[in-house]
Amino acid sequence: MNVLVGQSGGPTAVINSSLYGIVKNADHVLGMVNGIEGFLEGKVIEFDDVELLKTTPGAYLGSCRYMLPEDLSDPVYEKLFKRFAEFDIDCVLYIGGNDSMDTVSKLSRCDSDIKFIGIPKTIDNDLIMTDHTPGFGSAAKYVANTVREIVVDASVYDKPAVTIVEIMGRHAGWLTAASVLARKFKGDAPYLIYLPEVDFDVDDFVTKVDKLLKEKTAVVVCVSEGIHDSDGNFICGATGVDNFGHKMLSGAGKYLENLLREKLGCKARSVELNVLQRCSAQNMSLTDQTEAIEAGAFGLQAAISGKSGYMVAFDNGECKLVDVNEVCNKEKKVPENMIIDGCDISQDFIDYCLPLIKGSVDVPVDENGLNKFCYRS
Amino acid sequence: MNVLVGQSGGPTAVINSSLYGIVKNADHVLGMVNGIEGFLEGKVIEFDDVELLKTTPGAYLGSCRYMLPEDLSDPVYEKLFKRFAEFDIDCVLYIGGNDSMDTVSKLSRCDSDIKFIGIPKTIDNDLIMTDHTPGFGSAAKYVANTVREIVVDASVYDKPAVTIVEIMGRHAGWLTAASVLARKFKGDAPYLIYLPEVDFDVDDFVTKVDKLLKEKTAVVVCVSEGIHDSDGNFICGATGVDNFGHKMLSGAGKYLENLLREKLGCKARSVELNVLQRCSAQNMSLTDQTEAIEAGAFGLQAAISGKSGYMVAFDNGECKLVDVNEVCNKEKKVPENMIIDGCDISQDFIDYCLPLIKGSVDVPVDENGLNKFCYRS
Repeated sequence: MNVLVGQSGGPTAVINSSLYGIVKNADHVLGMVNGIEGFLEGKVIEFDDVELLKTTPGAYLGSCRYMLPEDLSDPVYEKLFKRFAEFDIDCVLYIGGNDSMDTVSKLSRCDSDIKFIGIPKTIDNDLIMTDHTPGFGSAAKYVANTVREIVVDASVYDKPAVTIVEIMGRHAGWLTAASVLARKFKGDAPYLIYLPEVDFDVDDFVTKVDKLLKEKTAVVVCVSEGIHDSDGNFICGATGVDNFGHKMLSGAGKYLENLLREKLGCKARSVELNVLQRCSAQNMSLTDQTEAIEAGAFGLQAAISGKSGYMVAFDNGECKLVDVNEVCNKEKKVPENMIIDGCDISQDFIDYCLPLIKGSVDVPVDENGLNKFCYRS
Repeated sequence: MNVLVGQSGGPTAVINSSLYGIVKNADHVLGMVNGIEGFLEGKVIEFDDVELLKTTPGAYLGSCRYMLPEDLSDPVYEKLFKRFAEFDIDCVLYIGGNDSMDTVSKLSRCDSDIKFIGIPKTIDNDLIMTDHTPGFGSAAKYVANTVREIVVDASVYDKPAVTIVEIMGRHAGWLTAASVLARKFKGDAPYLIYLPEVDFDVDDFVTKVDKLLKEKTAVVVCVSEGIHDSDGNFICGATGVDNFGHKMLSGAGKYLENLLREKLGCKARSVELNVLQRCSAQNMSLTDQTEAIEAGAFGLQAAISGKSGYMVAFDNGECKLVDVNEVCNKEKKVPENMIIDGCDISQDFIDYCLPLIKGSVDVPVDENGLNKFCYRS
């Protein structure tokens, strides 16, 4: 059995753990470099020692953002299947999110004996037909621990000030919702949490912050990068021109920081968690890492046993297979019962999320005491 | 002996470790809440269990930014010394940076029997007469580990792109220099490192990045927030007006990101490490934590033994006392021998910095597996 594995889409803390779960259990495995796009150019590698993969964030094999054409008679498919034949591939495992499952769906619908299985990963947790997705637990833990640290930092002065934390999530607010776990006690910061699932009312936001500034000193607020008004316009994305004539883009956090300063005359700052929330090794959740490895191994077994056109999913902590054609190009949003009054997160979400961040992972360090990662040389 | 301790200035990962070193070793100790400013209003607390202080970032006692007047006959001094008398204080330990040492200097020059000792802390490492300063080692480790993770994240795609990381340091580039430790091998990213010690030439920067884009895909560059042109104008701080008419401020990273996109038409993004670099518990250096505790304990002993008007300093790994009047209001910059061609960091810095980030600290976790911090209730 010749196995081919690829990674696609944005990095997570545990996408390499899924790779580990496959490579460790396969007899002969090749890796696509830079996903299906690199593979089209014949870029593949063999694997050597893979232990460090389990604690290396990012995408060891490199990634791509490459959508295959809808028309399965497009010549790119012939080219791809020639490549598969060139390397005598029996099954293909593709680790990725929504767009990557679209790739698995299309390839599995082509006429061939090759088995195609999708291994889910995304920090956004927005894949449907699975309780949750590997990558989310570690990102959620990063958000919870980091917002807790930001609250500690914001609390040192005795003067009222607002800190807006901008968290990834364009359409689904799962990751932003995880900021609720930062609270050390009932009533602790963050005091307001806004997800893209709810229309954002700027005036109501200003009123709420104004009220908080009369009661608290460190007013910490978390917002999803994808918050939008009732017409669907993103609150982020305001553009302007600086003194030098350069165009400037601002995210939701920066926009609201400037707005509050202008409207309320208060001290305000914003912190964009940025790429760190998807590439932090130190906040890896042991549960997330374990499940990512399991997902890889389970997908491998499924392919070997002849299954094709499925994605590995999680249901009550167990792996199962779901039809990849039903998964791709859909999004799972945070349900209403997890959101309170459009600006807070309910116990239902906390109960859902806590098991996913459980357990910590020791990241091996190099001779200087810094996190040791593996990389393609 | 009645000891009074306060914290002042920006938070660090280990300012509470210095507090621990004092509280643990003193017979009777009171804490000023929000530094000298809060103490003026009579805000003090007693201490209970202090074990968690060692692994709690921020400033447990709260901080202030409050400069005492130059004129020692100003009535605020009489008010302060009345407060000292009210609590029957014998010695005062003040943990802080430059401005806080100015406070220690002034108080020690007032006519009284009270002993005043300064305990150094700053992530900027810019205090003079000491080899280094508690707080720097942990912040440097955060920068090194985090830039390494950002490089991992930036390296997943096969398309050339620039990532600019903006690191704290308005006048001294020590912390930005620590990004050199992120390299996993010789020649690894970050490829360019700019400190405020060297005038920043925008055109030369664009030329260098253009060249790198022809050789590499993930062009990661680190800049200090305080980089400035040869006239002393900050590269950051460009202002403009967004579409909604709100004033916008941009830091060095955001400014250079926009500039590169415009000049080179390349993909570019910027990451501001922001407050996380000074409040991350998980990157605490054991050396830094140990020295912070030692500095507190050593300062306490000095005060008890009758010394006043000194700051605790580090010299060959040992604590000593230096005249606080000579320390305050001065800045230690990164010396020339640690900077290469204005855009890289030398082995001299690496040899200097590596011992300071040595050793890791286990941060206790709560029942949910999140970092457990102590806080004033």
